[in-house]
Amino acid sequence: MATEESIVVTKDEVHSFVIRSMEAVGLKLKHGTVLADLIVSAECRGHASHGLNKLEQYMNEIKSGMTSTEDLEPSVLKETSATALVDGNNLIGPYVARFCMDLAIQKAKSAGIGIVSCRGSNHFGTAGWYSLRATEQGLIKVLGTNPLSLGAPAQNGDSFVLDMATTAVAMGKCELKGRRDQPLPTGWAVDVEGHETYQFKTMAGLSPLGGTEESSGYKGYGLAMMVEVLCGVLSGGAFGLTHRPARTHDRPADYGQCFIAIDPDNFAEGFTERMQSLMDSCRNQEPADQDPVLVAGDPERHHQALCDKLGGIPYHPAQIRISKDLATRYKVTPMKPL
Amino acid sequence: MATEESIVVTKDEVHSFVIRSMEAVGLKLKHGTVLADLIVSAECRGHASHGLNKLEQYMNEIKSGMTSTEDLEPSVLKETSATALVDGNNLIGPYVARFCMDLAIQKAKSAGIGIVSCRGSNHFGTAGWYSLRATEQGLIKVLGTNPLSLGAPAQNGDSFVLDMATTAVAMGKCELKGRRDQPLPTGWAVDVEGHETYQFKTMAGLSPLGGTEESSGYKGYGLAMMVEVLCGVLSGGAFGLTHRPARTHDRPADYGQCFIAIDPDNFAEGFTERMQSLMDSCRNQEPADQDPVLVAGDPERHHQALCDKLGGIPYHPAQIRISKDLATRYKVTPMKPL
Repeated sequence: MATEESIVVTKDEVHSFVIRSMEAVGLKLKHGTVLADLIVSAECRGHASHGLNKLEQYMNEIKSGMTSTEDLEPSVLKETSATALVDGNNLIGPYVARFCMDLAIQKAKSAGIGIVSCRGSNHFGTAGWYSLRATEQGLIKVLGTNPLSLGAPAQNGDSFVLDMATTAVAMGKCELKGRRDQPLPTGWAVDVEGHETYQFKTMAGLSPLGGTEESSGYKGYGLAMMVEVLCGVLSGGAFGLTHRPARTHDRPADYGQCFIAIDPDNFAEGFTERMQSLMDSCRNQEPADQDPVLVAGDPERHHQALCDKLGGIPYHPAQIRISKDLATRYKVTPMKPL
Repeated sequence: MATEESIVVTKDEVHSFVIRSMEAVGLKLKHGTVLADLIVSAECRGHASHGLNKLEQYMNEIKSGMTSTEDLEPSVLKETSATALVDGNNLIGPYVARFCMDLAIQKAKSAGIGIVSCRGSNHFGTAGWYSLRATEQGLIKVLGTNPLSLGAPAQNGDSFVLDMATTAVAMGKCELKGRRDQPLPTGWAVDVEGHETYQFKTMAGLSPLGGTEESSGYKGYGLAMMVEVLCGVLSGGAFGLTHRPARTHDRPADYGQCFIAIDPDNFAEGFTERMQSLMDSCRNQEPADQDPVLVAGDPERHHQALCDKLGGIPYHPAQIRISKDLATRYKVTPMKPL
């Protein structure tokens, strides 16, 4: 949300700052451009946790040689009319993931469903970005890395876009709290001994969706495993304890990802009408408190409208300061606010 | 769990009691047999909420003419090498769902992935039963009705079987609490005004997985919508507010369901080895309390071992009493305990 404190930067300036920063660590323009597209989209949709907040992490991965800067494309290792196994060749995550999503879309258009399993990839940003890509072509998209996403097209540009971590919250949300010196809410994180913690500094892990056993935390654990099976185990990439620990750079991440696209034309006619009716019937429910009932994708639409009104993306001053420091360290022209 | 109070009935006797009861309301033997298979499996795996507990509900559906007893098969309406749209012709749920799962498995074996979307179906019991069917053939299975399930094969008969309602708990669990005169735990259910309730009698709805907004209840809501999109909206069956209200019989349920099977042979080699390693690494984690760490499917395996040891399924006396009353009302020979 824009507050009195927030500093507005145009989308073009954010986009070009990401490209400048990526070029400073040697990334090819074609790879950096996809990352910039993703970051601008995440910021406009209000996912600050996956916007500039992650930029230094991507740069560190490249600087330490853990993400490749070679002029390569991902490789298709195995293929049927409806499936593909892809090696991301350790390229930057969003470039690999966009390639896989587009391949799944292409397969769905001919076979009705397309599933692309990918290994040798890296952090791919917001899963919803890929879902949106499929919904823009009238397709349904399911699943991602440990986050899980589903997008489905409705009418007149309206769409359902679920993009959720299978933990109670995404790590990026905890990072943002830490960056802003705010305490972590109940049920978000645990310390190294597995006990709940309210401080970003002492957190060692995220709690699963559902919290305790009685409130069904085992379901969040089960969902995380489901995503691990479809992404890590199926692709032959890293999985479970073979994952490189967070914030280390001793070996490539070798992330596995999974993209499934479904063409609703192969099923019952009138998909978008029913989708619209389902979404509108939720939105028209009488709310339990004063806030209106939303569906997945609505908060992002509201934030996008706010960015349009402001003529750019509203940033917390801490993020602007951090980006400026980063620019100085890498001798990159800093972002110019509006 | 077997307690001192529990009454043991052999699997064969439970199976034959279900068939007797179904024949009493006019269901064809081939349809009733599949329901009996499912109920016995659910009971052995410890899912009492989806065992005999549901029998009267199935009988009421048939008696009121809402589930068809005609000598029919489900119809395939549309098909590609990897997809199918099926009309369940309002047959009993497990018969329709087994047909769809087997069709998805067959498609996965030729195209690498198979998705079958089904409408005109009815309550299909435990989603895990269908997942197990796919894992037994070395395939991965994803999704169901509003519950969501994933099964993946590991080694030597070991497998991962997630089967979860996208609500905090399944309705059947609340019904069992009511039947046993026990209060509902925190975070399970709400009354007609949307406030939390601890009494089965006053409950009007289930809470979503995640609970409140701060503990990410909107994720449970999003997951429920995801399943609704893939099952109800894609198939053209009932969805959202077009669903027949629970415990009413004024029109057929027209449930939509979705079955996806994936053949891991089309992806990275060594799937079952990696699956085994992932599951074992979870099981070998040091527990936060004295109970060992489990993976989805383990509690069911433990209950199955208990049934083997007891020579039958242990029932709460209330369930035996209810089944006896049902038998009397329908002039069916009651179940004979061990």
